[in-house]
Amino acid sequence: MPRESEIISRIKARADASRKNDLLIGIGDDAAVVRNSAASNLIMCSDLVVEGVHFRRDWSDPFSIGYKALAATISDVAAMGGVPRFALVSLALPRETAADFIDDLIEGLFSIADAYDVAIVGGDTSSSPGPLFIDTVLAGECEDGRAVTRGGAKEDDLIFVTGSLGASEVGLKLLEQQRASYRDDRSDGEKRFEEERAEAVSHHTRPEPRVAFGAAIGRAGFASAMIDISDGLSTDLKNLTTASNCGAVINSGSIPVAGCVKLLARDIGALDPLSIALKSGEEYELLFTTPQKNRSEIKALSAQLGVPISEIGKIIKEQRLLIDNGKLAELAIAGWEHLI
Amino acid sequence: MPRESEIISRIKARADASRKNDLLIGIGDDAAVVRNSAASNLIMCSDLVVEGVHFRRDWSDPFSIGYKALAATISDVAAMGGVPRFALVSLALPRETAADFIDDLIEGLFSIADAYDVAIVGGDTSSSPGPLFIDTVLAGECEDGRAVTRGGAKEDDLIFVTGSLGASEVGLKLLEQQRASYRDDRSDGEKRFEEERAEAVSHHTRPEPRVAFGAAIGRAGFASAMIDISDGLSTDLKNLTTASNCGAVINSGSIPVAGCVKLLARDIGALDPLSIALKSGEEYELLFTTPQKNRSEIKALSAQLGVPISEIGKIIKEQRLLIDNGKLAELAIAGWEHLI
Repeated sequence: MPRESEIISRIKARADASRKNDLLIGIGDDAAVVRNSAASNLIMCSDLVVEGVHFRRDWSDPFSIGYKALAATISDVAAMGGVPRFALVSLALPRETAADFIDDLIEGLFSIADAYDVAIVGGDTSSSPGPLFIDTVLAGECEDGRAVTRGGAKEDDLIFVTGSLGASEVGLKLLEQQRASYRDDRSDGEKRFEEERAEAVSHHTRPEPRVAFGAAIGRAGFASAMIDISDGLSTDLKNLTTASNCGAVINSGSIPVAGCVKLLARDIGALDPLSIALKSGEEYELLFTTPQKNRSEIKALSAQLGVPISEIGKIIKEQRLLIDNGKLAELAIAGWEHLI
Repeated sequence: MPRESEIISRIKARADASRKNDLLIGIGDDAAVVRNSAASNLIMCSDLVVEGVHFRRDWSDPFSIGYKALAATISDVAAMGGVPRFALVSLALPRETAADFIDDLIEGLFSIADAYDVAIVGGDTSSSPGPLFIDTVLAGECEDGRAVTRGGAKEDDLIFVTGSLGASEVGLKLLEQQRASYRDDRSDGEKRFEEERAEAVSHHTRPEPRVAFGAAIGRAGFASAMIDISDGLSTDLKNLTTASNCGAVINSGSIPVAGCVKLLARDIGALDPLSIALKSGEEYELLFTTPQKNRSEIKALSAQLGVPISEIGKIIKEQRLLIDNGKLAELAIAGWEHLI
């Protein structure tokens, strides 16, 4: 592991390359200083990832570890209907960590920061006598009173989800099974499987938080409640409805199961594609509710931003989660499981 | 270790007890939302403490671990001339951690937050397969352009330090030597030694960041450069002068050595009191420079706020650090050493 001052110098050099005008004082002082937008609300969140709990080095390359660490907080700000602005990153690195590994980790962090116009303005570093720890903190903003909570869904509101679901879980399983890279034990149709496997792995290792859509939903005031899918659709729907003191009925045929999930479900193990889509975590799609009167505006926004959305169900008053498979059944809550 | 949801519930309940009006959305959603002051700058910093690197459980009680974790970031905001406002705390807890330990840690965090009018608005928790890990993040504010960096000291500026120095190092040594509590192998004058030992340990375990003074210095625009003493006076003077491209001469007789250091220096080992004061880290006093014309205003501010200050030297153009002991000598840079 390089000295702390060297690591900070690398981070500072990389941050200077992406420096934004609203950053007044960057890395290297007691704290960073940034210019507030007047009359806005500040959105703050953090996400802690721990080696052996949230990721394993034998499944995840350092670029992806850094990328995903910040993806989680960027997605959280999007789920509040906000615009992400400034990040802090705290790293505790095992002493045997190689300089190349650290460089790739840092590049992963800055890569996603640049992609979403986020400035990494500070943080802290330490050695770790145990596993690698990364805590990412993000400050975002929204107009006064426009933040969208999990708690505002009302009876008869429509339930929408962006994108498609399940690929992250399939990608993780492929990584766990060490089948993320090319296999030569197939012949017919192999190319298509390879492409789908690569897409699933990419969805898991390089998720794309729905920042533009989340912020647009927030500005427009369309959503009554919103959450990002970090723990799985069924779990996060439960989180949203619990916060809103309501329930939901979702339609099994409307859940947007990712194409690669349909093709690869059997390939990776036991579950059917729909169950994977209901369970898959770290998707970073947005799950939101809206009064029925907004349906056409929501669809127009989807078309305008090029973000596919699916209407998957409706909020009910009773605090139950049901799935309509032709007949109504209790929705099984299958969430993301940490490694330990 | 209790379940993550239980730990978050405890933190949320404690946060609700200290809830502030400018907190719009607190713990329990994807992110916290707070009301910005218009036309101010946002100050952001984080501080990472790792068990076995920054503290050891056999020397530090859980209340102090939590208290000190947040003290570090509160002091950083003070050192920018800002007012601390909102904190996030990320905790990775070894699985064997007892619920009582976690409660005391949380109480330590909220105790200092309450004392400095800081709202803990969010964070994250995880289990840890290794050491305890705490990352505290603080957002503060100052008027536009009023943040005080380390980099503005100019030739002939006066150098001031708040409070007195050295007690933190003595307190740490007493904790290391397991002599923080009452000893019965002395008789004459024992009471005074006991009181001084208790003061040193308290200075180490419950430091009091100079928030009111730092913010007043920032508002008044008196300081050309400022830093908090987290790594030791000599090291932090080096950090300040390096950032300012200058040097300094300090007067050995003007360094405010804490009373308990004078009494206990021999008691804990080899160093003389002045060397302890120059080396002692985690003091969280403010070291700042100011043009000579501000001397009387600075002293008036000190009297008004009841914060003792000492004028310890002067900035020089040449990039050297000198100490005047009757004759000039190079200042030895003796910093805070992490455990590993």
